[in-house]
Amino acid sequence: MTTVTAYAAPVGKAPLERTTIERRPLGESDVMIDIEFCGICHSDIHQVREGWGDGIFPMVPGHEITGVVTEAGSKVTRFTVGDRVGVGCMVDSCRRCENCKAGLEQYCLDQPTWTYNAIGKDGQPTYGGYSQKIVVDENYVLRIPEGLSLDVAAPLLCAGITTYSPLKFWNAGPGKRVAVVGFGGLGHMGVKIAHALGAEVTVLSQSLRKKDDGLRLGADHYYATADAKTFTDLAGSFDIIINTVSVPLDYAAFLSLLRTSGALVNVGIPEEEVQVSLASIFGNRRSLTSSNIGGIRETQEMLDFCADHQLGAEIELIEAGQINEAYERVANSDVRYRFVIDTATL
Amino acid sequence: MTTVTAYAAPVGKAPLERTTIERRPLGESDVMIDIEFCGICHSDIHQVREGWGDGIFPMVPGHEITGVVTEAGSKVTRFTVGDRVGVGCMVDSCRRCENCKAGLEQYCLDQPTWTYNAIGKDGQPTYGGYSQKIVVDENYVLRIPEGLSLDVAAPLLCAGITTYSPLKFWNAGPGKRVAVVGFGGLGHMGVKIAHALGAEVTVLSQSLRKKDDGLRLGADHYYATADAKTFTDLAGSFDIIINTVSVPLDYAAFLSLLRTSGALVNVGIPEEEVQVSLASIFGNRRSLTSSNIGGIRETQEMLDFCADHQLGAEIELIEAGQINEAYERVANSDVRYRFVIDTATL
Repeated sequence: MTTVTAYAAPVGKAPLERTTIERRPLGESDVMIDIEFCGICHSDIHQVREGWGDGIFPMVPGHEITGVVTEAGSKVTRFTVGDRVGVGCMVDSCRRCENCKAGLEQYCLDQPTWTYNAIGKDGQPTYGGYSQKIVVDENYVLRIPEGLSLDVAAPLLCAGITTYSPLKFWNAGPGKRVAVVGFGGLGHMGVKIAHALGAEVTVLSQSLRKKDDGLRLGADHYYATADAKTFTDLAGSFDIIINTVSVPLDYAAFLSLLRTSGALVNVGIPEEEVQVSLASIFGNRRSLTSSNIGGIRETQEMLDFCADHQLGAEIELIEAGQINEAYERVANSDVRYRFVIDTATL
Repeated sequence: MTTVTAYAAPVGKAPLERTTIERRPLGESDVMIDIEFCGICHSDIHQVREGWGDGIFPMVPGHEITGVVTEAGSKVTRFTVGDRVGVGCMVDSCRRCENCKAGLEQYCLDQPTWTYNAIGKDGQPTYGGYSQKIVVDENYVLRIPEGLSLDVAAPLLCAGITTYSPLKFWNAGPGKRVAVVGFGGLGHMGVKIAHALGAEVTVLSQSLRKKDDGLRLGADHYYATADAKTFTDLAGSFDIIINTVSVPLDYAAFLSLLRTSGALVNVGIPEEEVQVSLASIFGNRRSLTSSNIGGIRETQEMLDFCADHQLGAEIELIEAGQINEAYERVANSDVRYRFVIDTATL
């Protein structure tokens, strides 16, 4: 076992505080990673605050992890000491079900082992990236390509793949019109990636406050959803709408913005129970759907794509002591566009 | 103008009765069709009874029309006198919007001209197939292939294309598992077509009453939805679920039967306002969607496919005097599987 410093919420809804955790002994397929950076995802906050249900405490959040391999187990073949690597939302899965075999480990029928707030195959709780080191099976470790620095690469492990995967699944590309609802951590990566894929990109944000950033980062258009005129002007416009907002919206209004055969893909999961009128999906073969991160193979593909297109996240680098303040700011949509913890400060 | 005998509802919710209507003079792109058969679709009843909103009366329903061309306008190129033809749910559309240009006239952005209960481009109400003759622009007329008799072909113009189109759009075929919810007019065609496409087909019907027919017509499995065990046994099973039922269902329960990336396609439109929990679409990239008939090109493709595979509807041929009784029986799901009016009896 290796004792490492971490930041954890001791109980549900509590502030995070410095603590120590144990990392498992290196297995033959494991790598030990010195964590350098870890992004703060809105879902960290949902889970610490138990908005999605009971959590496992103490909880060390963090699933946007980048760092360097410092040890490799005897049967590790894909990584060696010194490799620049990443870990995202999952650290294992059953590896046998049809989804795992198809590279859709995120939809593992036996449920993936999430990077934190879960129980690993060894029966122990998993702890995330707000910590100095992590031990992960090499099959769930990603390579960070040259040309992507580890700080701006960290948020790609969740915010990047969460938007990349549905954009690819629904065929974003030249000739397609993509809207991204919400211009935060996920939203700004959605804009960058959709633009790099060649789509025409529109941001649908509550206000025009971040419009300049939106256009600078790749959006062709930027509309305020607080303005009812947006919904009449843009009716029937989009092939794909990626909704990154996790507070309940008027989904019927957003569905009305879809072009024939379009899809409203929800990647933000509301804490509240919300209903959608069935009538809102009739008329032009539109789909109401969701997407959840991406598989390991696709996450590597996304990292390579981002390196090729020089797409990193826009980040605010913080020290560990600022985590609780950062949580408040994320909850208030006050971050441009992702907080990343410099884990040297843990 | 040509005066023809028809069956019409004089006002909303009234029984149908024999009357006469006028058909427009033959335009240069029109064909005159002697109607031989017309299917009774559940949507005829929804519209006569104003379940979907106000109707235009008198109303002559019927959009599953087969017959023979008796006259052709001077600029008609695709049909000649004597041709065996069909007319489905629409008789015109704007022809200029992106959907019309793409062969998706059913989603015409200016709204298609429906075969009945609509106002045509001439400003006059359209009247459907419960009548002796109809005048239709040749671009909205289908060819009934040799080898399909006109009586069993009539229901293909709505029930056939309504199930064929989403099965094709969602890639039904070998290796795919398709469920058809409801085993009536639409459902039995969905089973036949999905089976012919090579999919593994399951019927999900309220009871096992029609199980023998289901298996005979192409289903591999047949389950009763009244049995709660069905929903546990079949959880995560289907790539495509075609819901042909127009009474509200527990949509969340049916969504739980979808395999990863699967789609629940609603082709039956409830008269009631119903809600679906947003949570029911999270988890495995499943889609809640709808489909509405098919375009003209795809309808022809479907007719050719059905002829190649010898797929006609299972019908009960009735006389015009039995229409009101047939409506009661359809409303009570008491038909195997489509009533077709022999229009010689009008």
